[in-house]
Amino acid sequence: MTASLSGTTRVEAFSDGVFAIAITLLILEIKVPHDVAPPATLGQALAHQWPSYLAFLTSFFTILIMWVNHHRLFTHIGRCDDRLLFFNGLLLLGVAVLPFPTALVAEYLGHAGQTTAASVYNGTLIVIAICFNLLWRSASRNGRLLHEDHDHDAVRHITESYRYGPLSYVVALALGFVSVTASLLLNLTLALYFALPSKTAAAISPRSRRGAGDRLEGH
Amino acid sequence: MTASLSGTTRVEAFSDGVFAIAITLLILEIKVPHDVAPPATLGQALAHQWPSYLAFLTSFFTILIMWVNHHRLFTHIGRCDDRLLFFNGLLLLGVAVLPFPTALVAEYLGHAGQTTAASVYNGTLIVIAICFNLLWRSASRNGRLLHEDHDHDAVRHITESYRYGPLSYVVALALGFVSVTASLLLNLTLALYFALPSKTAAAISPRSRRGAGDRLEGH
Amino acid sequence: MTASLSGTTRVEAFSDGVFAIAITLLILEIKVPHDVAPPATLGQALAHQWPSYLAFLTSFFTILIMWVNHHRLFTHIGRCDDRLLFFNGLLLLGVAVLPFPTALVAEYLGHAGQTTAASVYNGTLIVIAICFNLLWRSASRNGRLLHEDHDHDAVRHITESYRYGPLSYVVALALGFVSVTASLLLNLTLALYFALPSKTAAAISPRSRRGAGDRLEGH
Amino acid sequence: MTASLSGTTRVEAFSDGVFAIAITLLILEIKVPHDVAPPATLGQALAHQWPSYLAFLTSFFTILIMWVNHHRLFTHIGRCDDRLLFFNGLLLLGVAVLPFPTALVAEYLGHAGQTTAASVYNGTLIVIAICFNLLWRSASRNGRLLHEDHDHDAVRHITESYRYGPLSYVVALALGFVSVTASLLLNLTLALYFALPSKTAAAISPRSRRGAGDRLEGH
Repeated sequence: MTASLSGTTRVEAFSDGVFAIAITLLILEIKVPHDVAPPATLGQALAHQWPSYLAFLTSFFTILIMWVNHHRLFTHIGRCDDRLLFFNGLLLLGVAVLPFPTALVAEYLGHAGQTTAASVYNGTLIVIAICFNLLWRSASRNGRLLHEDHDHDAVRHITESYRYGPLSYVVALALGFVSVTASLLLNLTLALYFALPSKTAAAISPRSRRGAGDRLEGH
Repeated sequence: MTASLSGTTRVEAFSDGVFAIAITLLILEIKVPHDVAPPATLGQALAHQWPSYLAFLTSFFTILIMWVNHHRLFTHIGRCDDRLLFFNGLLLLGVAVLPFPTALVAEYLGHAGQTTAASVYNGTLIVIAICFNLLWRSASRNGRLLHEDHDHDAVRHITESYRYGPLSYVVALALGFVSVTASLLLNLTLALYFALPSKTAAAISPRSRRGAGDRLEGH
Repeated sequence: MTASLSGTTRVEAFSDGVFAIAITLLILEIKVPHDVAPPATLGQALAHQWPSYLAFLTSFFTILIMWVNHHRLFTHIGRCDDRLLFFNGLLLLGVAVLPFPTALVAEYLGHAGQTTAASVYNGTLIVIAICFNLLWRSASRNGRLLHEDHDHDAVRHITESYRYGPLSYVVALALGFVSVTASLLLNLTLALYFALPSKTAAAISPRSRRGAGDRLEGH
Repeated sequence: MTASLSGTTRVEAFSDGVFAIAITLLILEIKVPHDVAPPATLGQALAHQWPSYLAFLTSFFTILIMWVNHHRLFTHIGRCDDRLLFFNGLLLLGVAVLPFPTALVAEYLGHAGQTTAASVYNGTLIVIAICFNLLWRSASRNGRLLHEDHDHDAVRHITESYRYGPLSYVVALALGFVSVTASLLLNLTLALYFALPSKTAAAISPRSRRGAGDRLEGH
């Protein structure tokens, strides 16, 4: 194997690209208001677009958290095979698709069809959460693709916490039939909750505490 | 040569960028339905757009498989010259163009002109498949740009399987004159077939089995 | 830790992606003039679009300088934790959002609503500058996430100069209530001032002067 | 200095991002024909759009060649300072802008204003060529930022061949006043000429011939 991008490196680089592009493309869905006629002001027209901002922020933080989780998983995964590439591809499909349901919710929130829009949005999130589980289980079962000296506790902790990941999006999906705004706010809150640093949270690379590979880290 | 991006590394990084952007831009071609007038519902309007989803999925998995193949080729290629850069550039041209025929098929499927759209789509795929052959033959003939200790069996296996790559797209092109939907479904099936992990499939980096560079892989 | 993207490497790679995409997407906001009817010429129609070019250039150089600053900070930061990821995420949110206020200013400069547009634009820049401070303070307080052998003088210098960063954007915000064009020109001048190489400016990686890690740099 | 992206590595990665995004965004300017009314066919409507394809191909190969040149320069450049970052930023500005004049030429070729469009297009290319000279001269004068053991002949060869780079675009600019199509074809021919592998062309990384760093290349 060569020092040119290899092992999981190029999978991570490609995935980073898709995450970074999807998260940055989201802004294209927020449109500049045209034809603002007095007495309406630009400020009012911008305020009127709040569903776009809510949908944008929810998707931004959701993709951000997914990227953090992807990053975290791959600190444990040391090898790559076709099965991992396939599940990672399904995961990236979900991430690449997300700008569409985001635009859908932004356009239909408060109008007829908003429940359909929210269902498509939450459905996409559920599929992504399931793909995360498939990816992780494929890699971690019997430590198949993990580093040989992987942290067993951290691996078990991830497996257990991911088990309930899709559930929270199912709750958001159900809530969408009562209130689409509440459903989006729940998703945003969940993403922010996971994004907010906790005092006790493990650092993103738990193995670094043991100093392995510090030489490669250069300090 | 320096540790800053070099050798095939920067070619791979640039190619990864083009693959990742092309695969993520595809979603911009799926439009949010406007002016849904009762009794039509958003659900019906979304369902009505199925050609867009079919074209999107086909192109997504096709680009994904192309990226996997590109990745696989470059685990064997260790050096870069102008000829490799040229053929890689032609290949990236095909990948970067693909969102256009995808949008064309999505718009014209089921309308007059759909055969033309499908021909442009399959024609693009044929050109990309030919570029893959040119790239690989240029690199692998007499082992010109391969790692000195490359796996001869794996290299021969790639050369033979690539020989028939353009053919499957020619079949899809011909099928497009009978049914555009069937032609797209054939492309999607082919991409999924190659994407689906097989029990016996070689891991993506066959040379890792020999443990070379395990130190750099960090386990 | 492994040689696959890790430590701060993948955070930097993901951030680079967002910076690179945001800076390149800006051009999509400059529209090709349509329906140029004689006696008007294309040259006149293009000249008429000067607010778009001014907004584009201001945002381009602002994102460029932010990328340089981000790069500079991460030459000192050697470790990553959840808090750093969170503040980095907020910073990337600001960068990813910037194409929207840029388009807003380009559309409304010279029309009713231009002050609102300029306020949104400068408000976004203020938020980004605050995020830079939060990110840097979180990383540098007590040298928490810095390299163990970090350059204390350089670190203190950054901390002090960043303290006044948000202020310049507050001045631009205030100026926007007098003249939106002047406000944009101030932002452009500030970005160019920081971008222009000074004879005495420290090289971007001050620690390289000491030759640390020259082996990894390959010379 | 750390093994996390550093030295010229992150500059190259960021630049690669901008090149890759700009080259892939070009396709967004090619529009799917709408409202094709019989007896016109989709094939005729697509053929009618040939200026878009010509402009797309010219810009694609031009950006590709620019990326190859950028890559080539940075095999010699080993260090980075503020001046290099500034000139590299100007260069990236030109690359990021290119999709706009490309769309301009595609829209106006064959219509009133086509000479203006071609002048903006060639003007952008001239500015980029000048930036390449500024970047290279800043880095190579007295070997300021080059690898200590850089190849003096290769460096002198680059300096001399770059001197005449802007000239060819000036010729294309002048030709644009006679025929816009001929001007574009000249640019396309130039890009293809430089892209086409020559039998005698130096490999992209001339220093690899000496085997330096082969260990890092992994073979």
